[in-house]
Amino acid sequence: MSRLFMFEKPLGMRDTLPELYEKKHRVRSLMEKAIKEWGYSFLETPTLEYYETVGAASAILDQQLFKLLDREGHTLVLRPDMTAPIARVAASKLLKEDFPLRIAYSANVFRAQQREGGRPAEFEQIGVECINDDTVSSDGEVIALLVESLKAAGLLNFQISIGHIAFVQELFLQILGTEERANALRKFLYEKNYVGYREHVSSLALSSIDKQRLLDFLDLRGGEEVIGKALDLVENERGKKAILQLKELWDVMNDYDEQDKVKFDLTLVSHMTYYIGILFEVYAGNVGFSIGNGGRYGLLEKFGKEASATGFAVRVDRLLEALGGAWEEVSVHCIFFSQERRREAFQLAKQMHEKGTRTVLQDISGVKKLDAYTKKFANTIYLLGKESTNE
Amino acid sequence: MSRLFMFEKPLGMRDTLPELYEKKHRVRSLMEKAIKEWGYSFLETPTLEYYETVGAASAILDQQLFKLLDREGHTLVLRPDMTAPIARVAASKLLKEDFPLRIAYSANVFRAQQREGGRPAEFEQIGVECINDDTVSSDGEVIALLVESLKAAGLLNFQISIGHIAFVQELFLQILGTEERANALRKFLYEKNYVGYREHVSSLALSSIDKQRLLDFLDLRGGEEVIGKALDLVENERGKKAILQLKELWDVMNDYDEQDKVKFDLTLVSHMTYYIGILFEVYAGNVGFSIGNGGRYGLLEKFGKEASATGFAVRVDRLLEALGGAWEEVSVHCIFFSQERRREAFQLAKQMHEKGTRTVLQDISGVKKLDAYTKKFANTIYLLGKESTNE
Repeated sequence: MSRLFMFEKPLGMRDTLPELYEKKHRVRSLMEKAIKEWGYSFLETPTLEYYETVGAASAILDQQLFKLLDREGHTLVLRPDMTAPIARVAASKLLKEDFPLRIAYSANVFRAQQREGGRPAEFEQIGVECINDDTVSSDGEVIALLVESLKAAGLLNFQISIGHIAFVQELFLQILGTEERANALRKFLYEKNYVGYREHVSSLALSSIDKQRLLDFLDLRGGEEVIGKALDLVENERGKKAILQLKELWDVMNDYDEQDKVKFDLTLVSHMTYYIGILFEVYAGNVGFSIGNGGRYGLLEKFGKEASATGFAVRVDRLLEALGGAWEEVSVHCIFFSQERRREAFQLAKQMHEKGTRTVLQDISGVKKLDAYTKKFANTIYLLGKESTNE
Repeated sequence: MSRLFMFEKPLGMRDTLPELYEKKHRVRSLMEKAIKEWGYSFLETPTLEYYETVGAASAILDQQLFKLLDREGHTLVLRPDMTAPIARVAASKLLKEDFPLRIAYSANVFRAQQREGGRPAEFEQIGVECINDDTVSSDGEVIALLVESLKAAGLLNFQISIGHIAFVQELFLQILGTEERANALRKFLYEKNYVGYREHVSSLALSSIDKQRLLDFLDLRGGEEVIGKALDLVENERGKKAILQLKELWDVMNDYDEQDKVKFDLTLVSHMTYYIGILFEVYAGNVGFSIGNGGRYGLLEKFGKEASATGFAVRVDRLLEALGGAWEEVSVHCIFFSQERRREAFQLAKQMHEKGTRTVLQDISGVKKLDAYTKKFANTIYLLGKESTNE
């Protein structure tokens, strides 16, 4: 093994050392507790799936998939998200009774990276899917649970932006006439490149009224007042229906008393092509990227079930970044012993473990640098020799 | 997507549905609590590692590795165990101060399977590594913690068999003369094929005394009395030293009051080629395979550190099988609401969530088969219309 190479990890792969692990574990437990209280059932799916099923159903770019071949020549992928595997499980095993289904997960997902020093290629998502309930109440529940679970994790300063993919689609199609032109303009929204959007609009062969409508569209961000403006802007029934769903969602969030955590941003679109209704992103004050997102999707149809679902996924690494700051160090005690008092040491440790006190049992002959080592512990107890006790 | 194919998973890959998930989660939490109380720090390493580093250092057969190529043409592997990744992290980041180091993990590992219907290709291990402390106390601590954490998980009926790889090596080398002959005989021990072992011994060109010694070796199983017999059988210093370590280990287990959970089996060997000292396997009454194993290994030297370590790994799937039995069902309540009483429903659910009662909030208009659906819940509450309340 070459010395230079032996400590290296593949591109985008990280170790989670004990201090960060403890924090991550605590945040995960707090979110899981909230999610379970809302009646969601956690499950696990395999890390590897067939490319032809889950890989193709997920909305992640092909170049971001980790692929390998199995012995029979099938292409496997490391799951790039959990929504597609859960759609597979729900369609094949859990939806037989045609009930609403509330599923949750905390799982690592994989996205191959192109460059050194960039984004992580493996990261944990905690999420829920409320499946086979097409009410706006269901959309609202998922958003309210997102708020509740983030609060449970200790996050205070965050905001959820809500849009509706059908509204954007209808408005753009109505004004621009073709899917192709609509997609070209929508691309600027994905990239949140509003300067590019304005330039593109002014270059289009449209009436000045239609150009103005496309520019006015960019202002559809804020509270309840956005609803009226949006209704004025869109003319066809499907577009208006999307907005009326958002109106109802606003009322639902009001009934949850969580209106202050949400706002509308009707310019919101997603590279996740499976969304069909509302969609949303969560931003926390100090983090550049969204820490979570979600929406209503029709993915189950790819697995033969006529059902839609609404889900959210929170990225744990970004949530931890948003939570930031120092946190209490874990306090560990150490009992140093020599052979003569080994039994006494074990008995004392047992009492301390039973009280939940983290306590290391250390044969003093196993330590090379005793003085320096003792500094790692909140408290040290010495059970050495036949007589003396030093604490 | 073909209909036949769309629900399938790669060979050896499993879904963990909610009921099993809950059980697994609880067992994991109980074991983690015990392990933390003993002062071990949990960490995570990436699912993917370089084949040249961790893949080659692990003792898993090459044909069991899941391999893929990255963009630069390096071979990556899905980690087949956690011992090698932890050796990498310890050597590169955690051992700089040359202290004893207590590390733990709960992680999925991957072993490609050759046949349908066989063993799982992905499974969870919970384990510890006590690194850079070469005392027998450290070996004893790992075994005592294995006992303690299995008891914490609720397992009562289990036994740990302890052997010493150096004893087997020395005895076989001394009698058989060459590594090659020693390995040929040891192969029968790996396979626990004692009939084959006896036949092989009788076919060897050895004195009848030496043949008898190799047959007597098979009887070295039991309690403290095994020590004396083993000392009679082995002649060289390294072999005797191994047995004296086992004698000390026996005394350590006695001081932990855990002697009833351990016995000697000096015929124990392992396909893990990195073991250098004691090694052990755990068996539970009703499960055919060992549910966990471990030992002292020298793997850190492959990462440039002169240190040995002792660890254990428990297979969670087999532990769950050993725990077996029925399991209390998780009790979930459901509040059905209509729009008129939505706010009231949300407030009631909030109170129930705050008390830790798992409660689903269900818009009644989202349910297709109400009567059947209500049977899923321990209790249902209806907040419908303007007046009536049915509970």
